[in-house]
Amino acid sequence: MRGRERFIAALEGRPVDRPPVWLMRQAGRYLPEYRAVRAQHSFQEMYRRPELATEVTLQPIRRFGFDAAILFSDILVVPEAMGLPVEFPEGGPVFAHTVHTQADVEALHDLREGSLAFAIEAVAGLRRALGDETALVGFAGAPYTLAVYSIEGGSDSFKEIKRLEYAEPRVLEALLDRLTDAVIFFLRRQIAAGADAVQLFDSWGGNLAPDGFERFVVPRMRRIFAAVREAGGRSIYFVNGGAGLLERSAACGSDAVSIDWHVTLGEAIERVGRDRIVQGNMDPLALFGPPAQVEARAAAIVEQGRRARGHVFNVGHGLVPGTPSEGVEALVRAVRAAERR
Amino acid sequence: MRGRERFIAALEGRPVDRPPVWLMRQAGRYLPEYRAVRAQHSFQEMYRRPELATEVTLQPIRRFGFDAAILFSDILVVPEAMGLPVEFPEGGPVFAHTVHTQADVEALHDLREGSLAFAIEAVAGLRRALGDETALVGFAGAPYTLAVYSIEGGSDSFKEIKRLEYAEPRVLEALLDRLTDAVIFFLRRQIAAGADAVQLFDSWGGNLAPDGFERFVVPRMRRIFAAVREAGGRSIYFVNGGAGLLERSAACGSDAVSIDWHVTLGEAIERVGRDRIVQGNMDPLALFGPPAQVEARAAAIVEQGRRARGHVFNVGHGLVPGTPSEGVEALVRAVRAAERR
Repeated sequence: MRGRERFIAALEGRPVDRPPVWLMRQAGRYLPEYRAVRAQHSFQEMYRRPELATEVTLQPIRRFGFDAAILFSDILVVPEAMGLPVEFPEGGPVFAHTVHTQADVEALHDLREGSLAFAIEAVAGLRRALGDETALVGFAGAPYTLAVYSIEGGSDSFKEIKRLEYAEPRVLEALLDRLTDAVIFFLRRQIAAGADAVQLFDSWGGNLAPDGFERFVVPRMRRIFAAVREAGGRSIYFVNGGAGLLERSAACGSDAVSIDWHVTLGEAIERVGRDRIVQGNMDPLALFGPPAQVEARAAAIVEQGRRARGHVFNVGHGLVPGTPSEGVEALVRAVRAAERR
Repeated sequence: MRGRERFIAALEGRPVDRPPVWLMRQAGRYLPEYRAVRAQHSFQEMYRRPELATEVTLQPIRRFGFDAAILFSDILVVPEAMGLPVEFPEGGPVFAHTVHTQADVEALHDLREGSLAFAIEAVAGLRRALGDETALVGFAGAPYTLAVYSIEGGSDSFKEIKRLEYAEPRVLEALLDRLTDAVIFFLRRQIAAGADAVQLFDSWGGNLAPDGFERFVVPRMRRIFAAVREAGGRSIYFVNGGAGLLERSAACGSDAVSIDWHVTLGEAIERVGRDRIVQGNMDPLALFGPPAQVEARAAAIVEQGRRARGHVFNVGHGLVPGTPSEGVEALVRAVRAAERR
């Protein structure tokens, strides 16, 4: 099987020779070829210029032969296109202004034809470059996570969004609805441009207590995943820090549920249901260990993944700068070895 | 029932008129009377001088009438007494040096008679002040959490402790064993001085994947809880971010399992077992909502807690600065109202 066929089959619950594998943040600072591009360009230039975004998206495919490439971009392009400019002066995002009131929500723009054209153009170019060899994953930040940034800016105290949640829930809901519309707009265009699947990153989803997740997240994610399906796309939902929310995030209706590394994959499968497709879930920091140990850990995760209807091998959180390529190679070797068993 | 009797009965699974209530970080910056003391003294002075620690421990008891007081101190007193000096120049801890090698582990001191006398003296004074009216909770940081600080200093990247975990696990185990000995020493003396129970704070415990938790945490926590029982004390174990680890943290053998707010209390009880005592688990940020809503949320948690053999009402994470006292009052009112049902 070729990577693209394997990835699509796994997401559709059809038989595969082995789990497909790609890694969150597989393009990035741990790669010398990425740092060489980064030395010449700002982070924002890299995702805004399609030829640069394409190049760094392809770098880890050339080096490791992953089954899927993921568009190099940033989740904050959506709030930015809605009127919340952001800069990354030293890595972390800094916003020119943030959202606090109903009037702020109403002042946001809707996306329209031409919005985020740089990303759509990169998706189309990547589709041509990857052909049938390698799948292409598009993505967006999930509305709650985008709301955290839109409200808190670069802070991670969460006090302002929590204040809205508990004291002015309708303002938060209005913001989430606007973000949901924008995310759907963006994902539809990524699918039309050639993304085989889209991943929704709910990096701060674990910041909600279960009842808050039910009220603020579930209905909007259901709307998104229904729209992705209607557009002919496949969907993956990743809730970071969501070990207490697995049943609820699985109920949002994505094709695959991406599991973070705080729970064993086997236990996660029992909780979301063996009839579901799962993705995950190796601790990315485990790649710093000796390669033989990395292989053993990856093999154990492949084994647990067999209990589900389908499994896409991945890390349970993005790769971090400094990750040794020997660790990534050992991981890929272990997943490939599953083909022979 | 008086608060002390109610708290002890709940921890022992005996009948109570209503759940006892205390709140993590119930003494602190959200109280004007605390800020008045803090304006005159550094944070370190406040926990090192027994008369100041006693005063701020008692402040929330006077104001809200909680069933238990918790010693005002800091989890970093243990590594400090072992030879890792710490300062708090702007809130966060800064260490003079940190632990990276086996030699660094061996250079640590054991606690001995006289170590942490300021805290033991405060416990004894508090016991006299509280009498039979109010229970007294002592505490220590759990060894893994203390290891995070000992290794990372004030950083929260976790990269160095993760590197040790995956590449040099024996150095990490040696450090954890030293910290476990020190924690047991400290808890025994708190119990002897009059603490009715001790809480182990594993603030960073959720930073371990399940297999790491089993290897690095479980055996050491079992040793601690056995020692607490042998000393005639009662124990509570709080793993922050531990929604994926509930069954494993419950298996460590504490009298009560403290649940964070990322999971519903009802679901947590099903996972740890209805025969267990639980503590928790209101989102402390929910106290910023309207008082009527705070009461309703607290009442729902009281209701869920009835499914367990015993329930100590608490927040699922420490109170934050700025928490309105109207919110705390509403919470206490709702828990007290359970007596009449």
